[in-house]
Amino acid sequence: MVMELSQRAQYIPSSPIRKLVPYADAAKRDGVHVYHLNIGQPDIKTPDCALEAIRNIDRKVLEYSPSNGYLFLRNKLAEYYSRIGIRLAPDEIIVTSGGSEAVLYALLCCLDPGDEIIVTEPFYANYLSFAITAGAVIKPVTTRIEDGFRLPSVEDLERQITPRTKAILICNPNNPTGYLYTKEEMLQLRHIVLKHNLFLISDEVYREFVYSDEPYLSALQLEGLENNVVLIDSVSKRYSECGIRIGCLCTKNRDFRNAVMKLCQARLSPPLLGQIAAAASIDVEPGYLKGVYEEYLERRNFLIEGLNRIPGVYSPMPMGAFYTVASLPVDDAEKFCIWCLQEFRYNGATVMMAPASGFYSGQSVGRNQVRIAYVLNIEDLGKALVCLEKALEAYPGRVNG
Amino acid sequence: MVMELSQRAQYIPSSPIRKLVPYADAAKRDGVHVYHLNIGQPDIKTPDCALEAIRNIDRKVLEYSPSNGYLFLRNKLAEYYSRIGIRLAPDEIIVTSGGSEAVLYALLCCLDPGDEIIVTEPFYANYLSFAITAGAVIKPVTTRIEDGFRLPSVEDLERQITPRTKAILICNPNNPTGYLYTKEEMLQLRHIVLKHNLFLISDEVYREFVYSDEPYLSALQLEGLENNVVLIDSVSKRYSECGIRIGCLCTKNRDFRNAVMKLCQARLSPPLLGQIAAAASIDVEPGYLKGVYEEYLERRNFLIEGLNRIPGVYSPMPMGAFYTVASLPVDDAEKFCIWCLQEFRYNGATVMMAPASGFYSGQSVGRNQVRIAYVLNIEDLGKALVCLEKALEAYPGRVNG
Repeated sequence: MVMELSQRAQYIPSSPIRKLVPYADAAKRDGVHVYHLNIGQPDIKTPDCALEAIRNIDRKVLEYSPSNGYLFLRNKLAEYYSRIGIRLAPDEIIVTSGGSEAVLYALLCCLDPGDEIIVTEPFYANYLSFAITAGAVIKPVTTRIEDGFRLPSVEDLERQITPRTKAILICNPNNPTGYLYTKEEMLQLRHIVLKHNLFLISDEVYREFVYSDEPYLSALQLEGLENNVVLIDSVSKRYSECGIRIGCLCTKNRDFRNAVMKLCQARLSPPLLGQIAAAASIDVEPGYLKGVYEEYLERRNFLIEGLNRIPGVYSPMPMGAFYTVASLPVDDAEKFCIWCLQEFRYNGATVMMAPASGFYSGQSVGRNQVRIAYVLNIEDLGKALVCLEKALEAYPGRVNG
Repeated sequence: MVMELSQRAQYIPSSPIRKLVPYADAAKRDGVHVYHLNIGQPDIKTPDCALEAIRNIDRKVLEYSPSNGYLFLRNKLAEYYSRIGIRLAPDEIIVTSGGSEAVLYALLCCLDPGDEIIVTEPFYANYLSFAITAGAVIKPVTTRIEDGFRLPSVEDLERQITPRTKAILICNPNNPTGYLYTKEEMLQLRHIVLKHNLFLISDEVYREFVYSDEPYLSALQLEGLENNVVLIDSVSKRYSECGIRIGCLCTKNRDFRNAVMKLCQARLSPPLLGQIAAAASIDVEPGYLKGVYEEYLERRNFLIEGLNRIPGVYSPMPMGAFYTVASLPVDDAEKFCIWCLQEFRYNGATVMMAPASGFYSGQSVGRNQVRIAYVLNIEDLGKALVCLEKALEAYPGRVNG
């Protein structure tokens, strides 16, 4: 007799990139250079002050930290938020093991099995894993590449609301599309959230990567939503320190915080060493973030222009984050991505991209789309673009090119 | 209208010590010295080699690590297990954010909402939080202080098994009781697990703290249970580095590992810096663990002897971990613990203990019991014992003394 795993364990999908990894590994073993356009791991250096803080550690016991994180870090985070116009007291900030834990805990605290959460799609694939963990159902609202992935109308959003809807989850700027919500769209969300009495979970981990002249509008800055908004944040992308696993969950809703704290107490504490690095990072000289910003801006312009010059390829101009979703002249983007890794070589190299189908809930949408991350330097991005163009020319499943 | 949190958020209990914290804080503000017998944070120093590894970090980017942890750490862990007679390949080890994450993921992967898991009580209180998170039900099997907290009979255990029972969870050596399962009891568990086709989740984070002459028997060493056993482990207690949040989940069951990996991929990676410290710790010179062991052994003997000398107090002799559950001559241990913090002073000091009721599922069991951790040095333990004795003499709710 075989012991059965939980249904939950069966429903949680593998990461959309996971399927491609063996092909990439095989290509590398054959000496092929793989341009990684598939990942969200920045190549940018971590601030020196963060590394210094780690090197200077003078503790004798690496003990538990408080379940909501050290006050020295929460003070620093409150300072950071104050600088960008978000008013948060240190007690309104709960430090988590990466933004991932913050998303999971947010969903666990407002969704019971069978409850529904509205998410615009394409969406960050792990949201689905976290929702399934909570037993909740994602009700997707599809955004379209031909609309530049802008928010659908209030009516489209409201059509998905049922008596079981508890929350709306947004990622702004968006992973995977790079879309940045306009002020008008944020007010539209505010209207729906208030009208239907929902939580608004706002994942803003790419906040520092906004390529518009408008000031960034956080969900926490929307008036009258103090009890509705749960902010998800992380130092991972901002300071290129994804590995330290420091994020946070911020909300002015005290009951929500108390619920999250029960989960935090159960897991005892967020990582101590990461908290030390994160606190130091917030003090980085302003030139660091400016330099990173300019680097990404240049890469974005270079990449999007390059993509749109390839016949049959289309990418909207993303206004934030460091991703774009592009459509390709292919029958099936997943097949194409695997084919690139398995069959195609150009000057001894190939490209790896994330098929966008993994970011949609349905099977049919986004089948000719890929997510491309611009976490390579301009020179490598240029070579990757040439590689992609040549691959599309050679691909047997090319369509409407 | 008020937005509702999930029922789950309401059911998850606060930590049993949480209620006492404000009283302890108030006492400290009044200048009272509080002897902390309530916590599992060892006062032992972290190995120098772990701190050195952190200080010598020469990375430029603190990037994501693999979702199952770095191979260098999994190799070291496999080496460690091999030294203590547990054969595990590095691929059978999944690195987690502390043992806590390993317990949560184990439960999520084998329990659906409504499924049942058998746990002997008193049990580590956070198991309940993790079970509720998974929507599962803990079916307690009560162990009794007058039996030294030994495993109940096969019949008692089987009485709790229903068609919804998926697993048995043990903590060996036990937190909170310090009980160490005998070989006979382990074989008894093996019998039940095979007969009823269950998973056996074995939390062995206190493995190095075993004060018997018998060799330690891990659940992973039980014959024929390769597909049943899921081992939970952590470097936290072993190397006094609770704050780095490095644990692991080990199983020879490939399907179980694949399921856990989907959760691991969703949360991206375990803490990078902690992995560096943990890998270095495993190379600590053998004198370190021996020294720690001897220190705890001395403390245990001192504490248990001291407790049993106090009129009306009884503690069995725990054979592992660094806790004991003792019964006190009081009406209600929680009331007594609060009273100690709020009202009682002896030489300007008082004691803080964890009321054991938080470690039982029912309201009535263990009401006169406390959990005491021996994570203070002998001198302080001695003072704490005097303090406890004086408090029991003065306590208005004293019974059968």
